[in-house]
Parts: sequence; C-alpha cells; structure tokens
Amino acid sequence: MTIFPDMFLDFKRESLIGKAIKKNLLEINTYDIRDFTKQRAESVDDEVYGGGNGMLMMAQPIYDCYKSIIADKKDVTTYYMSPKGKTFNQDMAIEMSKKDEIIILCGHYEGVDERALQLINAKEISIGDYVLTGGEIPAMVIIDSLARFVKGVLSNEDSTSEESFRNNLLEYPQYTRPYEYEGLKVPDILLSGDHKKIAKWKLEKSIEITKENRPDLYEKYLKESLGGYDEF
Amino acid sequence: MTIFPDMFLDFKRESLIGKAIKKNLLEINTYDIRDFTKQRAESVDDEVYGGGNGMLMMAQPIYDCYKSIIADKKDVTTYYMSPKGKTFNQDMAIEMSKKDEIIILCGHYEGVDERALQLINAKEISIGDYVLTGGEIPAMVIIDSLARFVKGVLSNEDSTSEESFRNNLLEYPQYTRPYEYEGLKVPDILLSGDHKKIAKWKLEKSIEITKENRPDLYEKYLKESLGGYDEF
Repeated sequence: MTIFPDMFLDFKRESLIGKAIKKNLLEINTYDIRDFTKQRAESVDDEVYGGGNGMLMMAQPIYDCYKSIIADKKDVTTYYMSPKGKTFNQDMAIEMSKKDEIIILCGHYEGVDERALQLINAKEISIGDYVLTGGEIPAMVIIDSLARFVKGVLSNEDSTSEESFRNNLLEYPQYTRPYEYEGLKVPDILLSGDHKKIAKWKLEKSIEITKENRPDLYEKYLKESLGGYDEF
Repeated sequence: MTIFPDMFLDFKRESLIGKAIKKNLLEINTYDIRDFTKQRAESVDDEVYGGGNGMLMMAQPIYDCYKSIIADKKDVTTYYMSPKGKTFNQDMAIEMSKKDEIIILCGHYEGVDERALQLINAKEISIGDYVLTGGEIPAMVIIDSLARFVKGVLSNEDSTSEESFRNNLLEYPQYTRPYEYEGLKVPDILLSGDHKKIAKWKLEKSIEITKENRPDLYEKYLKESLGGYDEF
C-alpha cells in the first residue's frame, strides 16, 4: 500500500527480484492508496491534531485500501514501515519469510493517523535508526531480504547459509582472480589448500573486522561462544 | 557504481527525490561497472579464493569505473554498502549530508574483492543487520536520508527538527481529521489547546513506545536525561 506505486516498477523488473517474478517464484502487488480516498483532488493527508509540523496520512483511504486487499484473504500479517517500529534484523527476516503473504503499508509526510494502524492491525517495523522521506525504499529492503529465502531465487552457487550475522560475526575479506592486481596480492594462505588453516584465518579476520566495525556484535559473539548468556 | 543502473530510474523520477532532481537541488549519477570490464561477455565476477560459495565482483572493473568518476574531482568520500560495515544512523546521515559529493559502490553476488575496497579507499557502511541481494536498495536508503538535509527538498511544513531518534525517543502517536473514524476518537487532550499538557502527553507516549519497541534506545534516553553518561 503506497501513494507512489511507480517507485516499485524497476524493483519488480530488475536484478534477482525481477528474475524471481518472471519465474513466478514470488509476486509483488502495489496498491495505490490514492485510489481509495474520499477527499477532493485525490488528497490523502491532513493537518496534525495538537500541533506539530507537516501533514499526516488519513485513516480512511488506508483502511479502505486494506479492506479491498484482504477481502479474499485471511490471516495475513500487515507491517507498517516506520522509524518508531521494532528494528528489522536477519532473525525477523527468517521468521517473516515463512509466511505465504504479507502486506506492507508505506507511509509518507509526517506519518499516518494512529487509528489506521489500529484498524489494519499493523506491526511497526523499522529498517534502522535513520529517517527517510517515505516507506517505499524500506519496503523494498524487507521484500529483498525475504525473497532470498524463497527457494530458487538465489542461484545454487549463492546461498543463505554462510553469511554475515551468523554467530554474530561479520564476514571475512574475500578475494578473486587475478592473484596480483595493482601490486596487491591475494593472501597466500588462501592458495595453500590447507582447509584447516584457511578456516582459522577466516575466523580470525571475521573477529578482527567485527571488533573494529561492530563492537556490539563482538560482545554478543564473546558471550555466546563462552557458553552462557548474560540476559537481562 | 552499480551493475544495475536501471534500478535507480524510478527512484530518480518519483517522489521527493524526483522533485529535488527536477529543481536541481541534487544530482544522482549512475555508473555501470560492466562498462569497464576487460573480461569477456561483460563479466564482472569470478570464483572466491580459498573456497566458499558464490561469485565475487572483481577489482579491475570497479577500480577503472572509480578512476573514471574521480578524474575531475578531489577529496570525494567513497562508501561501500556492505553488511560488514559500520551501522548507518541519523548522526552519520547528518555528517554525510555536509559533503558536496559522495560515491557509493553497490556490491552483488557474494561481495567484492577486498582489493577493490582498498584501491578506492571505501568506507564500509551497513544499513542494518540483515542480508540483501545487492547494494542498490541500501544506496537508495543512504541517498534518501541525506537528501532530506538538502535545503529545499522537504517542504516548509515538513522538517528535520522534530522526529524520531532525537533525544533517543521515538515519535508519539499522531492523529488527523476526522475527529471520529470507525468509532475511534482522537485523544481529547490533543484538542484541549493546553500546550503544556499536550507536550507532557506527547513525551509520555514517546517514552511508552520507546520502552516497548526499543528498550536499547530507552536505556540511552534514561542515561542521558539523568545527566551522566556511563561510557565504557
């Protein structure tokens, strides 16, 4: 549900998502909230009660749009992309990817009337601690991350099994051909054929980069690899 | 820098970003990395040294693409969208928005040859703890968040001053017309005209939702409003 359905055209046509749609592995439908407004001039927004800057999306067009979508469905979860939601992460992606269908509401302006969220029973999710102009790009983030778990979307060579955020470690540096480029060589250990040493090198590098870029994740890694959780 | 420049067409045409480009407030140029490859069949990827699934983007096409962009520039910061980077947030957005120009490298497949990142001196940034099929949507997230700070992009009514993540609190619920919809009324306090009471209600609601959805932020809010930082 969006007021900018055309923002999704390239997304639905290009790259892995485009291929997956062509292969009927997934379906993305956009619904224009403006089609459901009862206001003049296709308006969907109005001023905020109690003061404050900006305009707010009204409940009526959103709720009517929602009802038209769920008419033939039951038990479909609805999400609202919002900086005030719970933070999306890989575990949520895995959970959400188990659902057959989801609905995503993309907000604009200052946000949406709280009653719209109540009426469509929306779970608020945020893709990170920053503010954007609307919910469309965040919706693409969600769709893209879930699509990776749909069988056939990633090629056989790619995979979801060995990647960042497993075990709370970031991925080690990687190298491809040529062996030497602009005076920079591939670390010799990667050419050694010694799988044990290579695995050790990868782990060390992962730890190094996690410590540097994400001390919060490194902390988690330490706790979990020491066995006990310090939950609070 | 991308192998899917067409993914940015709608983004550059629609919504606030589209308007800002039409008004010459900002410029987004896409550079196709494939145009710079010296491999056959426009190939830009190859197998990973030391084993591992998937293909890696080679250093040469990326570095040559980069050199063609910076030929007439100096002192432009380059970012690589990567789950192993530092986590992007609103403070970084404010800092990055002060730069006149930035370059963003969008990766694909299993990632890029580490030497490409060295040669273009890329800062790795991540938009969150999840894995996507490529760096294009994350690049749009970055551009969208920075664009909000370019003068003229947001309308006068909108603003960057009162929003989520200021003071580590999420935004309170908001309401617009009509007063009653589907049996749900706007909280009477918002119609009271009593600015002091309204401000108190907003703060209480902000605290409530932050506590519920983001205990980590709420913890920060408490620490900072109690005066002293407990840094470690």
